[in-house]
Amino acid sequence: MEQIKKYNILKIDGGNKNIVEDIVVLEYPFTIFVDGKEVITLLCSPRSLKYLAVGFLYSEGFIEGYSAIEDVQIDEIKGRAYIRLNAKGIFNKKLQEKRTIASSGAKGTMFYDMLDSLKSKKVKEPLNIPVYEIKKLMETFNKNSELFYKTGGVHACAICNNNNIIYFEEDIGRHNALDKVLGRALAEDMDLKDKIVLLSGRVSSEMLVKAVKREIKVVVSRSAPTSLAVHMARELNIALIGFVRGEKMNIYSSFSSLKF
Amino acid sequence: MEQIKKYNILKIDGGNKNIVEDIVVLEYPFTIFVDGKEVITLLCSPRSLKYLAVGFLYSEGFIEGYSAIEDVQIDEIKGRAYIRLNAKGIFNKKLQEKRTIASSGAKGTMFYDMLDSLKSKKVKEPLNIPVYEIKKLMETFNKNSELFYKTGGVHACAICNNNNIIYFEEDIGRHNALDKVLGRALAEDMDLKDKIVLLSGRVSSEMLVKAVKREIKVVVSRSAPTSLAVHMARELNIALIGFVRGEKMNIYSSFSSLKF
Repeated sequence: MEQIKKYNILKIDGGNKNIVEDIVVLEYPFTIFVDGKEVITLLCSPRSLKYLAVGFLYSEGFIEGYSAIEDVQIDEIKGRAYIRLNAKGIFNKKLQEKRTIASSGAKGTMFYDMLDSLKSKKVKEPLNIPVYEIKKLMETFNKNSELFYKTGGVHACAICNNNNIIYFEEDIGRHNALDKVLGRALAEDMDLKDKIVLLSGRVSSEMLVKAVKREIKVVVSRSAPTSLAVHMARELNIALIGFVRGEKMNIYSSFSSLKF
Repeated sequence: MEQIKKYNILKIDGGNKNIVEDIVVLEYPFTIFVDGKEVITLLCSPRSLKYLAVGFLYSEGFIEGYSAIEDVQIDEIKGRAYIRLNAKGIFNKKLQEKRTIASSGAKGTMFYDMLDSLKSKKVKEPLNIPVYEIKKLMETFNKNSELFYKTGGVHACAICNNNNIIYFEEDIGRHNALDKVLGRALAEDMDLKDKIVLLSGRVSSEMLVKAVKREIKVVVSRSAPTSLAVHMARELNIALIGFVRGEKMNIYSSFSSLKF
């Protein structure tokens, strides 16, 4: 199965802008069923899916060895693993009760339902942000990343208006950093419709969903997006901008949100 | 609260090796309780914890606005948030039932119990790996990362013996990539006691736990570890090696596992 997806994007390099074909990594929802019961949807790359299912069940304590597995069936089209355990499998009610929640917007096979439910957030009036402001914001953002320079071990996230960073947070987890700035905006009752989110890390569908739920129209990262993030951004008319580095950036969606 | 922790580590640079003080990003277990019920333990950086809790509850659909929150208490020492919702909070049985499992080794406040349960995996006979072999393995590993070079959007993970990469996987998720190689080793009944794990991404406690459960003694990354990963590696006598880049690497634990 393909691990990538191609999109026509708008590539900026200094004063040049061109529509070019770009390669984006595929994000693939993969739902694991154990003895007929839905356990989780992992957002992954669609390769070695059997090993992913087996490794996941081991890491999570569902099995203590491969001999606990009676049968594994992978349905690549539907993105599903059907696993049957034998008597050695320890999948049971007790384990289920101990489960924690994923810091994730993707709730099992409801993933696509969720995309539907976000349709109401479709952007009707795009922001009109000058490209040079985005470059400047990212420069300031990079300079702010103190903890990163000390340790190389964190992600940063910011909420900005056209000219300034308003909230800035760092965390060892991408999702946490984003939840921190969004949580603060919520607590301080800030309207985010005219704000921009800046991210240091990759933009997966989960990251995009968090921003969209708060009605953010522009998501900017110095890293790569995934295919599902690009797909969603296009469906919802969100401006998704990646690889903002020096004079360069890639615009994946809602090209008209930018001013040149 | 401090965001970092200092450790004396063994720093290699070409032919030089020195014990130096190094700064590692703090990994902090933070448990959120809603109306007295434990919801999740996030592994995070201990700053803006109130905003993290609020942002998380919003992103996960527990609340639809800040007005749903009656009260937030943060206990920094214990690493806990106690949140009370009012009638607008939608925390209820139905939502709980829909929860997915975290691809995480950290099960709520059982985190430290888990560390205890891993005591049996403490390494008694460390491997004796020549440092130059680790450099060579990382060079090969970097060359293998085809999808990364195409998209910049994935993590890689490998299982190796002293000289060769045996399994190699890439995935948009660090955890998935590791689960894939470990799952394959399990399915193919490979003994991992004398194997090395190579990672492109950061080593959090969750990543280390996955490796330790399969009795791996040496974990190598081209990125940074977190404090909890270093702590665990030292407790369990696992060799944890980070920032393997060119002639350089940092050895965080079990220095005697390496041969110079």
